[in-house]
Amino acid sequence: MPDFPDIEFERRLERLHAGMAEAQLDALLLTTEAEIRWITGFRTLFWQSPARPWFLVVPAGQAPIAAIPSIGAELMAQTWIRDIRTWSAPHASDEGVGLLTDVLTGFRRIGLPMGREASLRMPLSDFQRLQAGLQDSQFVCASRLLNGLRQIKSPREVEAIEAMCQIAGQAFARAPQLFAEGQSLDQAFRAFKIALLEEGAEDVPYLVGGAGQGGYGDVISPPGEQPLRTGDVLMLDTGATRRGYFCDFDRNFAVGRADQRSQRAYSCLWKATEAGLAAARPGATMADLFAAMQAVIDADFPAAPGQAGSVGRMGHGLGMQLTETPSIVEWDTTVLQTGMVITLEPSLTMAEGCMMVHEENLVITEDGCRLLTPRAAPELPIL
Amino acid sequence: MPDFPDIEFERRLERLHAGMAEAQLDALLLTTEAEIRWITGFRTLFWQSPARPWFLVVPAGQAPIAAIPSIGAELMAQTWIRDIRTWSAPHASDEGVGLLTDVLTGFRRIGLPMGREASLRMPLSDFQRLQAGLQDSQFVCASRLLNGLRQIKSPREVEAIEAMCQIAGQAFARAPQLFAEGQSLDQAFRAFKIALLEEGAEDVPYLVGGAGQGGYGDVISPPGEQPLRTGDVLMLDTGATRRGYFCDFDRNFAVGRADQRSQRAYSCLWKATEAGLAAARPGATMADLFAAMQAVIDADFPAAPGQAGSVGRMGHGLGMQLTETPSIVEWDTTVLQTGMVITLEPSLTMAEGCMMVHEENLVITEDGCRLLTPRAAPELPIL
Repeated sequence: MPDFPDIEFERRLERLHAGMAEAQLDALLLTTEAEIRWITGFRTLFWQSPARPWFLVVPAGQAPIAAIPSIGAELMAQTWIRDIRTWSAPHASDEGVGLLTDVLTGFRRIGLPMGREASLRMPLSDFQRLQAGLQDSQFVCASRLLNGLRQIKSPREVEAIEAMCQIAGQAFARAPQLFAEGQSLDQAFRAFKIALLEEGAEDVPYLVGGAGQGGYGDVISPPGEQPLRTGDVLMLDTGATRRGYFCDFDRNFAVGRADQRSQRAYSCLWKATEAGLAAARPGATMADLFAAMQAVIDADFPAAPGQAGSVGRMGHGLGMQLTETPSIVEWDTTVLQTGMVITLEPSLTMAEGCMMVHEENLVITEDGCRLLTPRAAPELPIL
Repeated sequence: MPDFPDIEFERRLERLHAGMAEAQLDALLLTTEAEIRWITGFRTLFWQSPARPWFLVVPAGQAPIAAIPSIGAELMAQTWIRDIRTWSAPHASDEGVGLLTDVLTGFRRIGLPMGREASLRMPLSDFQRLQAGLQDSQFVCASRLLNGLRQIKSPREVEAIEAMCQIAGQAFARAPQLFAEGQSLDQAFRAFKIALLEEGAEDVPYLVGGAGQGGYGDVISPPGEQPLRTGDVLMLDTGATRRGYFCDFDRNFAVGRADQRSQRAYSCLWKATEAGLAAARPGATMADLFAAMQAVIDADFPAAPGQAGSVGRMGHGLGMQLTETPSIVEWDTTVLQTGMVITLEPSLTMAEGCMMVHEENLVITEDGCRLLTPRAAPELPIL
């Protein structure tokens, strides 16, 4: 049942223990899905329910301890985790805090992801109660440690992401059969979700996009019922999953015909992605990738208003989450290393309410990078 | 584009303002999807990305203020919210904390959901920074207030949930065409997800279930590749959405034939649900529903080990989230009121690793309740 053999998790734990030693952590406390799954392999959609918190404690140099609601005990027992402690949840008065306090007692420096991209998936008042019960302990931020470890994907993780990218590529290849003038945008989305599932995706947690004359105004909206019209550029951006790993890329299509500005914007972003691919190698920084792509956009569309401003970045890490650290932004100096999986996502605002976004997924290799997505066509495809 | 007319949100805000006055809150701070959408109507799958926090501040008696990443400004402007303040995210050093501090300065008692079912969707270190910048302010728990308000659904919300329940009912009605002996469980799940989308669901964030001889061992696992066998009981439990509202119910099917124990367990849980339906009326408590259903199970299966223990409860609130407060447990004395939407979810463990769960969705009406799901068949259906 687990998605990977035990050795995969043993290696992750080894790396984590080494990082914890360097950060002088006596234990680590995790409350969020991706972090807990990264260590344990515990995968369930049950996280959709906010009713119950879940805890994983990793003592320095020791095996992890799961402190979880009893409903999860059977599934957790199928992972490589052996120390599983449960409480009956939901609980009238103690949603696992007493149990967790017992587990953590005696550890002085406890790491907890509290920094970039972190959230606390337990009631804040329960966290305060936990702190009060651990007077001799100190919680310190473990985000840098965990984000850094998770950024480097194992070969099995790369394989999982690539498999999902290929599936989504097959679904996008069916675009001429799936999308047509007159079809409402929400029906186009529905048809694409079905195609993703048919091609082998297990879930489609994320599908956004847009359609509009020559470009679209927004890339995070749910689809409306407006019909696709000749001259529209249709974009679908999907984060679909298989075995708990995401792809995250988009494709653009012109409906019926493409005007010149859309074609130019498309070519520009295609070239920007090429520049990103050429720059993506161990030793380069995320900021280098940003500069490489931005230079192409600046050359082709010197007056384009705030291209990075609207989306905020030109790519990001990818894996068990749709987006992970690091970010392709001017200020992110994270150095690329072999095994990192990232997206390149250059975007361009051609006019008020009219933008375009491209996106591809790649893995950093020893001497450069390798695309995980089938590369988008160099010219704007016309449906 | 918004899912509801402005008047819907105005009424929610009115109720919230009244509750805030009673709780003597000067402002409310929200960081999570459902709470922010409940007030604003802001709906996007973009919450999948953990890279950016989103904030909504509701001052006492005043219009809400959105403090959000600029990527969301255009979509937020389509809602009824007029005061939208943005920062460019991801940000090198200030992920909205400065902006949020400005918005909250001057408010002394600030409500924040910190209690049952709450999480903090912003880095804890940023929250601590926010607290340090608001020395004259005090954060107090607003979970009881918000959970209480959200428990009562408006007629438009009930309509949205019911529409989704009917769609899922149509998908379940296709079971004889969708599921068959020899089919792997993951293919059965995939076929059902496609059916849900075809029938009108927009997303299927949650589909769990199981299959096994006479019952299943677990209700939160992802599906494996084992084939359905004659004598298996197959259960699918779906939380699918339309316009951002969930259904959450399951159906059980016997593959080929049903053994006597499965039939008895099925009848027992069907009767337990009937008892829950009969007890569900304004003035009754969640604990009353628990007692009514448990009495039926105890009468039919007096020796069944820990039936409520494995799942932990026998139903819960339902709406913008798959599960919401309150819970059908012995200790939850929440009084049912007209407009509450809940699930009844009695379960039964017949033997080690062999359980069964039923689930229906209903709305509390003035004189009782009304099913939102097409009622399950009284006898275990055989495929």
